[in-house]
Amino acid sequence: MEKFISLPGFRDFYPDTCAVRNYIFAQWRSVARRYGFVEYEIPVLEPTDLYRRKSGDEIVKQLFHFQDGGERDVALRPETTPSLARMAAARQRDYRKPMKWFQIGTCFRYEKPQKGRGREFYQFNCDILGERNPAADADLVALAIDVMLGFGFRAGDFRVRLSDRNVWPEFLRREGVSEESTPAFLQVIDKLEREKEEVTAAKLTEMGTSLEAVRAFIASKAAGYAPLEAVMTALTARGLADYVEIDLNIVRGLAYYTGTVFEVFDCGKGMRAVAGGGRYDNLCQLIGGVDLAAVGFAMGDMVIGDLIRETAHTNERLQQWLKTAGKVEVYAVVASEARRTEALGIVQALRDAGVAVDFSYGADKVGKQFQTAEQLGARLAVVIGDEYPQLKLKQLAARTEETVDAAAVVAAVTAALAS
Amino acid sequence: MEKFISLPGFRDFYPDTCAVRNYIFAQWRSVARRYGFVEYEIPVLEPTDLYRRKSGDEIVKQLFHFQDGGERDVALRPETTPSLARMAAARQRDYRKPMKWFQIGTCFRYEKPQKGRGREFYQFNCDILGERNPAADADLVALAIDVMLGFGFRAGDFRVRLSDRNVWPEFLRREGVSEESTPAFLQVIDKLEREKEEVTAAKLTEMGTSLEAVRAFIASKAAGYAPLEAVMTALTARGLADYVEIDLNIVRGLAYYTGTVFEVFDCGKGMRAVAGGGRYDNLCQLIGGVDLAAVGFAMGDMVIGDLIRETAHTNERLQQWLKTAGKVEVYAVVASEARRTEALGIVQALRDAGVAVDFSYGADKVGKQFQTAEQLGARLAVVIGDEYPQLKLKQLAARTEETVDAAAVVAAVTAALAS
Repeated sequence: MEKFISLPGFRDFYPDTCAVRNYIFAQWRSVARRYGFVEYEIPVLEPTDLYRRKSGDEIVKQLFHFQDGGERDVALRPETTPSLARMAAARQRDYRKPMKWFQIGTCFRYEKPQKGRGREFYQFNCDILGERNPAADADLVALAIDVMLGFGFRAGDFRVRLSDRNVWPEFLRREGVSEESTPAFLQVIDKLEREKEEVTAAKLTEMGTSLEAVRAFIASKAAGYAPLEAVMTALTARGLADYVEIDLNIVRGLAYYTGTVFEVFDCGKGMRAVAGGGRYDNLCQLIGGVDLAAVGFAMGDMVIGDLIRETAHTNERLQQWLKTAGKVEVYAVVASEARRTEALGIVQALRDAGVAVDFSYGADKVGKQFQTAEQLGARLAVVIGDEYPQLKLKQLAARTEETVDAAAVVAAVTAALAS
Repeated sequence: MEKFISLPGFRDFYPDTCAVRNYIFAQWRSVARRYGFVEYEIPVLEPTDLYRRKSGDEIVKQLFHFQDGGERDVALRPETTPSLARMAAARQRDYRKPMKWFQIGTCFRYEKPQKGRGREFYQFNCDILGERNPAADADLVALAIDVMLGFGFRAGDFRVRLSDRNVWPEFLRREGVSEESTPAFLQVIDKLEREKEEVTAAKLTEMGTSLEAVRAFIASKAAGYAPLEAVMTALTARGLADYVEIDLNIVRGLAYYTGTVFEVFDCGKGMRAVAGGGRYDNLCQLIGGVDLAAVGFAMGDMVIGDLIRETAHTNERLQQWLKTAGKVEVYAVVASEARRTEALGIVQALRDAGVAVDFSYGADKVGKQFQTAEQLGARLAVVIGDEYPQLKLKQLAARTEETVDAAAVVAAVTAALAS
């Protein structure tokens, strides 16, 4: 008989890996909340044309797409931004500006699975809509930094590389390069760190500029360019400037960025991009016919998850969290089967009071029940036996015990858990 | 230009509806935690054969299924149980029994969208694996009841209809009906409340029994049938018996149930099934070749969401929750643009302390900033102006204010929020 396994690039989250996922989600949610973002969600399936409109026909090759039973060409979402633009454009009049919205969910890409890249992955998306002030860009960069700090990363572990797409057209004008060369030029910049020097130099010369001029401009950090300086000033005021450097190499591959662009980089030998984003003031117009400024950023769960586990001090924080998160607090030990009815009443009363309680469904020996309590990570055991209504309340780590009346057990347990 | 909308049967969750979704999720998660369940997750996409194996070829018509780029026949998950059975069978040796696992996520069905039924919906799944004791069945029924009570539903609002598939084969034996008629007979029972009396009576007579005999057996409530009595005894011990009635009409359409079956019903005129589940001891064998007992239940978000909003006392609880959940706590009012740098430092310090803070990105008038603070539902405003480092801390509802030194603002805000 065929044994089923999950599809290539798709992940099964057993409870241990799901807890790590939940740790990442909890951090994302916590920072988004502190920054005043509200949550939204989009369909997993959308018309394929939505993605074509944003990214052109090329994107379709990277999609899980198909015809549904109604002969609609549909696709599993590869990202959330086009859907957000659709939703925001449709109802932006109903919301005060800026709209600060976040989302956490799976996205899908039909790519070769490899380390840090799956076919189904989680993504955290934060977007600010209806605000042109660079203070919004700065708030997003700060949010990205606080996510990293929240995981326990330090200044030496990561940095934000910040730029603005619009510095390059100015450079090209000064160099006398024709405007229609801009997209091709930005592609050269995007590849600057990966392409061979001669190849890059030849391409730039052909366009009417030079590798030297480009390098000098990158070294200038576009000093004096107001929008970038506004972002840096706001980050400095928050005490976050040390995590950021202006790096004009960053243009981001996606054609739709219109201003600020930034990436969060791992400073380790991996030099992986952990998150990225920027300003995309034209997308709501393109998708929904509404002029709505926008700046956003996204972080996937796979690279950050690897980094957290690989870095000693962030992994320690994770392991500490896993010790208590989602664990049973109290194990009800049924020491006498004759008292099972009373034991069930106590289990119910504790659960009603918000306590996480487990117990054995069968008539297990008392020793085995204590063993299970420890395996589950319970802090307390409540022992219900023939002495009922007198119960024993045991602190499992300290191995202390006290006698408690059944009528007072909820109060005693709540107090013990709070201490 | 074509305007994009979401696909039929798919939902956009704007922040207001997403908050309602989150309320439902929070309740589900809270009860699962109190009952000692741990979270897992499965892929959204699975081999179509996984669903065929469980439910036969018929199911394929109700699936979103297609060939992926690797010519695999794949489907969007219509439910989670087959994937759970696959995962549990593959690694059950690694886990102590019983495994109490829960999951919350979207499922997909290619059906005609209607009230309470979408093509993409959320489902809450709780399963107990590796336990044959009916105490596990009772724990799940209790969990389902506590989910309803957690939403604020009362005894008159809903009831659990409880049965056991195995009572019917015994009835059929006594009636002298051949064993191979069992599936067809159970279909007749499943339709008993919807089919015309004559049609049912004729079918039953043809099988060698009668509508009268069936009715008399249903009226007997299978008294004395040990597994059902064990479940009822455990629920009575918890004080939950009033929410449950034995109702042998309930057989549940799905062929895979092997014992206890139950449904949670809305007692209003809608008489909608809100949740359902039961014992399925053969599925892990069928899917993964491993003998692993199982009992589970599932609740979708759509019917329960409608019910919560339609019922005055549950809707009131929801509205109360929405007033504070996910809301900004503090609005930082920049009363003097000259102090924006200091204001940003205070925003950062408060956020670092875990407080949800928002502020205006631009140089808005002070009156407008206070208006925004109230629109966002902030409890406090911190006013940063020319008197810096003296700040004003305002309670927005009480309209009281105090003066606070910038160095003490985090402590003052934290204290005010806790009071």
